[in-house]
Amino acid sequence: MISKKMQEQIQSSSVIRAMFEEGKRLAELYGAENVFDFSLGNPNVEPPDEVNKAILEILNADNLMSIHGYMNNSGYEEVRAAIAKSINDKFSTDFTHKNILMTVGAAGGLNVIFKTLLNPQDEVITFAPFFGEYRNYVKNHEGELVIISPNTTDFQPNLEEFKEKITSKTKAVIINSPNNPTGVIYSEETIIKLSKILTEKQKEFGTDIYLVSDEPYRELAYDNAEVPYLSKYYANTIIGYSFSKSLSLPGERIGYLVISDQAADFENIVSAANIANRILGYVNAPSLFQRVVAKCLDVKVDIDTYNKNRELLYKALLSYGYQCIKPEGAFYMFVKTPIENDVEFCNLANKKNILIVPGTAFGCPGYVRIAYCVAYKTIENALPGFKALIEEIK
Amino acid sequence: MISKKMQEQIQSSSVIRAMFEEGKRLAELYGAENVFDFSLGNPNVEPPDEVNKAILEILNADNLMSIHGYMNNSGYEEVRAAIAKSINDKFSTDFTHKNILMTVGAAGGLNVIFKTLLNPQDEVITFAPFFGEYRNYVKNHEGELVIISPNTTDFQPNLEEFKEKITSKTKAVIINSPNNPTGVIYSEETIIKLSKILTEKQKEFGTDIYLVSDEPYRELAYDNAEVPYLSKYYANTIIGYSFSKSLSLPGERIGYLVISDQAADFENIVSAANIANRILGYVNAPSLFQRVVAKCLDVKVDIDTYNKNRELLYKALLSYGYQCIKPEGAFYMFVKTPIENDVEFCNLANKKNILIVPGTAFGCPGYVRIAYCVAYKTIENALPGFKALIEEIK
Repeated sequence: MISKKMQEQIQSSSVIRAMFEEGKRLAELYGAENVFDFSLGNPNVEPPDEVNKAILEILNADNLMSIHGYMNNSGYEEVRAAIAKSINDKFSTDFTHKNILMTVGAAGGLNVIFKTLLNPQDEVITFAPFFGEYRNYVKNHEGELVIISPNTTDFQPNLEEFKEKITSKTKAVIINSPNNPTGVIYSEETIIKLSKILTEKQKEFGTDIYLVSDEPYRELAYDNAEVPYLSKYYANTIIGYSFSKSLSLPGERIGYLVISDQAADFENIVSAANIANRILGYVNAPSLFQRVVAKCLDVKVDIDTYNKNRELLYKALLSYGYQCIKPEGAFYMFVKTPIENDVEFCNLANKKNILIVPGTAFGCPGYVRIAYCVAYKTIENALPGFKALIEEIK
Repeated sequence: MISKKMQEQIQSSSVIRAMFEEGKRLAELYGAENVFDFSLGNPNVEPPDEVNKAILEILNADNLMSIHGYMNNSGYEEVRAAIAKSINDKFSTDFTHKNILMTVGAAGGLNVIFKTLLNPQDEVITFAPFFGEYRNYVKNHEGELVIISPNTTDFQPNLEEFKEKITSKTKAVIINSPNNPTGVIYSEETIIKLSKILTEKQKEFGTDIYLVSDEPYRELAYDNAEVPYLSKYYANTIIGYSFSKSLSLPGERIGYLVISDQAADFENIVSAANIANRILGYVNAPSLFQRVVAKCLDVKVDIDTYNKNRELLYKALLSYGYQCIKPEGAFYMFVKTPIENDVEFCNLANKKNILIVPGTAFGCPGYVRIAYCVAYKTIENALPGFKALIEEIK
């Protein structure tokens, strides 16, 4: 009775649901404090005080209709202008409110841009390992996701294979840096090479290929690592941003798209994205939180907390004999499994009350993702389990 | 470079955009106070005080992570339970949190349910005049919208034609009562007849046909008019609700779906709708406002303001010689145009600085929609224009 596509979705979600159920079962059995859930990318650092302060200021200052009412589908012009200015100040760009479209999180923004760009069977390329939802976002708009196999040496994108897989049907490339699930930041060198390949291929095929940069983790970069701002390297750039992690507001669904003036067909993309936001049923980004984020553009969550988790977990896992690239951003660690089968390894981890996600879910078997956005104590308490796990396998 | 579908969208949006631009031009020329904009269904009555009171209570009482964080894609269980209880109290139903899925407005809910139900080429029936966005919501999920021609006698649905147009491909019927654009409430008699037809046709074709009830205007019913609660009349019922009008929160994007236990394939619909909310990029309904509406289930905006507008406009238009059904709900009046061509009539109205929408946009030419969710004074000031308009035509 439900659609065939959704029957398949229920089927494929059942693995993750089973894990979730297992976690609940373990928590009931051993107590929640004895179950170590590293499976969710759910921020555990509180939003900065400025967020609630901003809400109160807005409730006191503005009239109710202008706080909770409709506005242009692209969002409040003054909010978009404030965001443009903030980006310009940080990255010496030259955006105005016209380049910014407020969205229902980054997920909303990516769907808006794929709706805007994709004809049926158009191809969108991504690099494994990648955020699994891209499969759905591309399929929602009848496109085909083309996956480039992982470069497990340093988890920078595999540009050799990329070059070969670009065709006349390639409409977009989606990248995610700092990356979920690896925590790797795509280096400036990578971005320059990738842009060069795209420029050459556009010329070869006489097409436009849009580079969509999914950046919910931009502000979560450790050791002052630089995250290149892509519109400066490649003309056909569209950036999807979210405040879910930078301000720990994942439930509020607030983000934006940046559409570069330099992008081919700029005016039409802007018009179409505005309409897509409406007809996809988002209508507009939540109104109060548009105004809230505009007042919080210079603050972000305390990333020190995540950094301490990173250091603790990374050093410990390495000392036990695990192999892993040190993440430079986000709050994930992508660890090679000491046995080949990553799903089996997750099941073994479950037996130590440790919940982690198999790399297979990100198009990269033989690895697991550990989301370390958890209490420091949770990591401390889980470490003996991680140690026993690898020792038992050896 | 943008998709073909979106090129068409830009094309077809251009009429409405032209009207919007014309309104802006007129406002600049004559001053905003001398332009009478009846074109938008944008509530002008303030949200009840309880809304901002609820925000403050929540900010003071709850911890930040539980206010702004992720939750189950279906929404907070306690919010869903509170909504179920409120519906049960009002309509003697028997829902629990399992029947409720929090959505990004009614628009989000309708997209979730069409994603859940529709296979390519499945048919969704609606009755003209209808909210034009249904075209997009059905097309987003590869369905076909089948339009039943209007019954202009009383704007109850044309059930004779309906009976003929149901086929083995009919997957759903979408109705909207109180109706946009007519303000008519579908009577209990209508609902009983419609349910009987659906039940017979299900039997004839051996299919399930879901009745989707789009109810953003449920609380805006005048003279204590009853709006039948559809799950009590027909088993395969799914209700889409929004707080946009009942609490004047259209910008906040908060609503819910009610999925009846009695609906065929109930468990799968609930699972699939939960997943659809995620993969369509909504992820979840905005978190703070989930908690806000749960505290405001017993309040609604002052509909007296809309009622006064209704009485003033209706009496005046009738006295000038216009023909119109008196609206029983919502904040729209659907008026027969004194010339055949409704688009031309809107252009004539523009010359009197009056902005209204042609019935053609709602699948019902020869009529115009006047949205009277405006200041009383705006109506008073526009009346001479409406009078002159019909006199000049006569």
